[in-house]
Amino acid sequence: MFLSDNTAPACPEVLNYLQQYVQNSVDHPYGGDQLTSKLNDIVSNIFEREVMVFPVLSGTASNCLALAAMCPSTGAVITHRNSHLSVDENTAPHFFTGGAALHQIGGGADTISPEELSRFCAKRPWRDVHSAVPRVLTITQATELGRIYSTEHLQELGAIARHYDMRVFIDGARFANALIQQNVSPSAAVMPSGASAMTLGAIKNGTFGAEALVLFEPELFPVVRQKAKQTGHLASKMRYLSAQLHAYFKDGLWLNNARAANSAAKQLSGLLNANPHCELAIESDTNQIFVRMPDALHQHLQDAGFDIYPWHVEDQACFRLVTNWATSNDHIDAFANALRSY
Amino acid sequence: MFLSDNTAPACPEVLNYLQQYVQNSVDHPYGGDQLTSKLNDIVSNIFEREVMVFPVLSGTASNCLALAAMCPSTGAVITHRNSHLSVDENTAPHFFTGGAALHQIGGGADTISPEELSRFCAKRPWRDVHSAVPRVLTITQATELGRIYSTEHLQELGAIARHYDMRVFIDGARFANALIQQNVSPSAAVMPSGASAMTLGAIKNGTFGAEALVLFEPELFPVVRQKAKQTGHLASKMRYLSAQLHAYFKDGLWLNNARAANSAAKQLSGLLNANPHCELAIESDTNQIFVRMPDALHQHLQDAGFDIYPWHVEDQACFRLVTNWATSNDHIDAFANALRSY
Amino acid sequence: MFLSDNTAPACPEVLNYLQQYVQNSVDHPYGGDQLTSKLNDIVSNIFEREVMVFPVLSGTASNCLALAAMCPSTGAVITHRNSHLSVDENTAPHFFTGGAALHQIGGGADTISPEELSRFCAKRPWRDVHSAVPRVLTITQATELGRIYSTEHLQELGAIARHYDMRVFIDGARFANALIQQNVSPSAAVMPSGASAMTLGAIKNGTFGAEALVLFEPELFPVVRQKAKQTGHLASKMRYLSAQLHAYFKDGLWLNNARAANSAAKQLSGLLNANPHCELAIESDTNQIFVRMPDALHQHLQDAGFDIYPWHVEDQACFRLVTNWATSNDHIDAFANALRSY
Amino acid sequence: MFLSDNTAPACPEVLNYLQQYVQNSVDHPYGGDQLTSKLNDIVSNIFEREVMVFPVLSGTASNCLALAAMCPSTGAVITHRNSHLSVDENTAPHFFTGGAALHQIGGGADTISPEELSRFCAKRPWRDVHSAVPRVLTITQATELGRIYSTEHLQELGAIARHYDMRVFIDGARFANALIQQNVSPSAAVMPSGASAMTLGAIKNGTFGAEALVLFEPELFPVVRQKAKQTGHLASKMRYLSAQLHAYFKDGLWLNNARAANSAAKQLSGLLNANPHCELAIESDTNQIFVRMPDALHQHLQDAGFDIYPWHVEDQACFRLVTNWATSNDHIDAFANALRSY
Repeated sequence: MFLSDNTAPACPEVLNYLQQYVQNSVDHPYGGDQLTSKLNDIVSNIFEREVMVFPVLSGTASNCLALAAMCPSTGAVITHRNSHLSVDENTAPHFFTGGAALHQIGGGADTISPEELSRFCAKRPWRDVHSAVPRVLTITQATELGRIYSTEHLQELGAIARHYDMRVFIDGARFANALIQQNVSPSAAVMPSGASAMTLGAIKNGTFGAEALVLFEPELFPVVRQKAKQTGHLASKMRYLSAQLHAYFKDGLWLNNARAANSAAKQLSGLLNANPHCELAIESDTNQIFVRMPDALHQHLQDAGFDIYPWHVEDQACFRLVTNWATSNDHIDAFANALRSY
Repeated sequence: MFLSDNTAPACPEVLNYLQQYVQNSVDHPYGGDQLTSKLNDIVSNIFEREVMVFPVLSGTASNCLALAAMCPSTGAVITHRNSHLSVDENTAPHFFTGGAALHQIGGGADTISPEELSRFCAKRPWRDVHSAVPRVLTITQATELGRIYSTEHLQELGAIARHYDMRVFIDGARFANALIQQNVSPSAAVMPSGASAMTLGAIKNGTFGAEALVLFEPELFPVVRQKAKQTGHLASKMRYLSAQLHAYFKDGLWLNNARAANSAAKQLSGLLNANPHCELAIESDTNQIFVRMPDALHQHLQDAGFDIYPWHVEDQACFRLVTNWATSNDHIDAFANALRSY
Repeated sequence: MFLSDNTAPACPEVLNYLQQYVQNSVDHPYGGDQLTSKLNDIVSNIFEREVMVFPVLSGTASNCLALAAMCPSTGAVITHRNSHLSVDENTAPHFFTGGAALHQIGGGADTISPEELSRFCAKRPWRDVHSAVPRVLTITQATELGRIYSTEHLQELGAIARHYDMRVFIDGARFANALIQQNVSPSAAVMPSGASAMTLGAIKNGTFGAEALVLFEPELFPVVRQKAKQTGHLASKMRYLSAQLHAYFKDGLWLNNARAANSAAKQLSGLLNANPHCELAIESDTNQIFVRMPDALHQHLQDAGFDIYPWHVEDQACFRLVTNWATSNDHIDAFANALRSY
Repeated sequence: MFLSDNTAPACPEVLNYLQQYVQNSVDHPYGGDQLTSKLNDIVSNIFEREVMVFPVLSGTASNCLALAAMCPSTGAVITHRNSHLSVDENTAPHFFTGGAALHQIGGGADTISPEELSRFCAKRPWRDVHSAVPRVLTITQATELGRIYSTEHLQELGAIARHYDMRVFIDGARFANALIQQNVSPSAAVMPSGASAMTLGAIKNGTFGAEALVLFEPELFPVVRQKAKQTGHLASKMRYLSAQLHAYFKDGLWLNNARAANSAAKQLSGLLNANPHCELAIESDTNQIFVRMPDALHQHLQDAGFDIYPWHVEDQACFRLVTNWATSNDHIDAFANALRSY
């Protein structure tokens, strides 16, 4: 139940939207439909600028299609050594880009500091063609540990990227959760980085099979579309992916869902923090909680029906709990009872 | 309306199934859920043998994941020169396999004869490593022109493939339509070919975003799964793809839908055949119709709201009409009226 | 002995040049040396324009590095269905380009006519992203059957390529042999096609491990260099490849060698044509001969020490004899004797 | 002059061998010749077991063809974070393998300890398909810093690799230099690791365009050969690469050359160590020297004609000097004079 935000169901608004609006739709395939074409306006409104949107089945595909459009096959992508791209995408970044390298940096557990980025870019002896030259910087917002890059931080990273002729890509698998915590507009949250593209994660937060790849550089769109066809990601009935995203952005559903998840995490985190057997491993800002507890307590919670992953924050063993839009007060209460009964 | 089976909506049973069964589902991600694991049994029953099923977003991905699991990157795939793989998958077969070649053969417009397959395999001087050695034979059932390989035909092709150490793959994007027309069991329709895997197309016939990749060689499954992760096709909430397939196979929905589409095609074909301005370009057995007509009549039908693609059967210009599960008597009547009013 | 021009030894001028000039050379690796940098001038003089040259180990690498620099991974290359790229490069074109498709056309046995190229480009329904859009046209000069595209022919093909926004690439594995027969300048022979790059084959004609990839579009050079590093084709001691090419172009060695091979072929062809058991399968213009003869005669020649490949010109079985720069009058006389003694 | 072992000329024995033995050779192309087939025996004798040898143009190709034959496209290669594969091969490892990942580890500056290898393999939560599972361990002997893995060290690494079902690959770009210093047989030096394949570097040590890829698992040979064709590394006149290797192994030339280079390095290292302005950054065992010196001294030496690369040993700035088989007493004396005159 707290295993992953991927265990959450699709939210009712999304399924209802599919039922009501799409059931009898007859429209053009491969994104030539009206729902898909309207997505651009919806997301352009959200970011207060012209953007292009490409609906994609999975986070992996969404991230890697963006990289494939932004990085030549002989180039490299700078990413945090603990990022999803580094540790959880199998070999997808190499495969989609046709061979590009990942330069994995990061002194801290989940963020890249401007200093280390500068140092890495400046010091590396990019001797001719022998090293793979970095062409893209990826930033995960919120980070893998649920924390947030400040606007100033993004601005500094973006300036360094520009200086070294790199594009910026934001992996926003949990961007909505970050936004709620930051309490700024989507545009204010992202644009200081000078990002060319971002994944706007939706599957963890309410849809069931649609992520939005948002292109701030519209000229990337035809490349993404070609690459999507090549990789089997040009859905013939794309309007059913787009429909999920329509419902997702309608009436602020995406933000409400993230707010619910963050709020549940705060309650859960409070419970754990107050428990004498538990100690938070880090302070997360969003919907993930990293906590140290005795193995016996973990077993006790598992037995009570709470599936929880063992995790690592750096070399430190701990456990990860993740809340989602559907985490209810009942879930929290049940968990509190289980904790108490240990 | 007769543009493509991809214009059809998802069928109500599929959306209802999602609503009823999945809305409140909390289950493991990445195919570790109960709906996905039950799929193997459902499809094993259909084919009367143990199979493994992998739910995939698109036909391109489904075909190409199979090829990637069956063909080494330095090998080749034999396919008909007019097959979907040859002309409609962009560069996906090369990309998924990491470079494999396509040997495009076919004296006839849509089928490969045993004689030409034998001749091609025997005569080619597979001089050492210079030619890409064929490792997979692909067969499209029903064909791109809506016709059907007989059981005997498949058996002969399969025997040749085995003789030359090739696996067989069936692209069954419209397999259900073929089955209805053949009036045999799925197993009798496919197994004579000795196929290792097939795509069981569903998107054109009722689902909106789920195809079934069926593996008759279960040892291919882990390779497909790895490759699916690498290509962004391992859906985190795979149960929503599996649910579509559950609904699709329930109570024979897939066969009923195909029957409806074929039957509508027969009516349509009869209308066109009876019309003095029209002449069928070929006799199709399933839900596609290829017809020659004056451009003025095509324009007249377009104006009446019937979107119809210009097409080619070999070098011969014609038009293609496609029916689907949702084609109703009303549609047919409206079309008959439009024809009459020319 | 007449098996292939690849059986010929390196010519003495090439080995002597290595001995004299390079033995004690200490110079920069990876092409930063003086011999490599002077190559640009040498070949620029030959083509009477600024070109860049990249020395490569093999014909496959030379052809495919060019394609990789000219064709996006989601594009396609048009090539003759019997060209070396189509039948003798295994899967290299797909691999180097990261997935690009080959569109194999050609009504004639070895050349592409302007009419069929136009028809192919015009008629194909390049429906959006579904087909791989042609971005490069490749032309083999001399052709696989030893014949020659006229200047006018190249000009027409080039104009069509430009019209459809394709670059032109010349596979010049036997370009020197073509040049001798055409009796025009290298520039006059190539530039009417508007080629962006060509392979200037040397290995079959005197060097032992160096081909020249000639770039008429200098901006392709850094892409080729990156791709060469990625594919293991950036030789650390590149000056030893460049040295072979220096010797090859010095004092017209490349043309003299080709002249000798063509002249030997004419003698051989005359012998065969005069023999009552033999019939030329086609009239070749350069150093390849395609001849029909009884299998018994073929066996007789083999027994006499003349290795000769069975071949096909289209579906017609025949034998291929290839001469090279080292084919001597003694060889020809010995062959004449062997023929007579049948 | 001390810039890199790649600045050294080909050694006279290699060029003479080409002149004498190969000039008039007429033989089969693509490795079907006698020189190539005899290589297997020569190297089998060296390693006292049956091996297969594949001659390759470059170190990059030799390393990466081996990886491509040993690692699936969805797998990973463990390598030291400072290894040539990690920092100097551009994106070649990803490209040749069709996407495999590099897991870069290493607490020390140039070697991987058994403890950290075990820890890495054991701790990583190889969660299903999400991480790229390591399938190959690469070891560089001598290391990038010119040091040597002991036999016991290799044995321990090999045992861990077997335990985790990984193959072992040895990058032996400077293997001969290691062997001289270790004073053991080639077999004793390598086989404790259980290696499946190794690169036996020759270009830095006497040849000019031929490395030997040695396969201790002969069943890898056909895969390497296919992959070599796909990547343009199947030389048509392969006998000219093989000839270089014949000369290289004849009468112990490879060991004599390495001995000369190591011995020159010891003299140079002694000179530097004795100099009050210089301090060795590490103790190297072979033909590379890493030394700290004032920039003014570096400039002084450059002005005296000694090209020397600035380098890093970890974060510590220093300079690298490399000797080779051709480094003479005169070179050393001249350098001693230059040092003295500062």
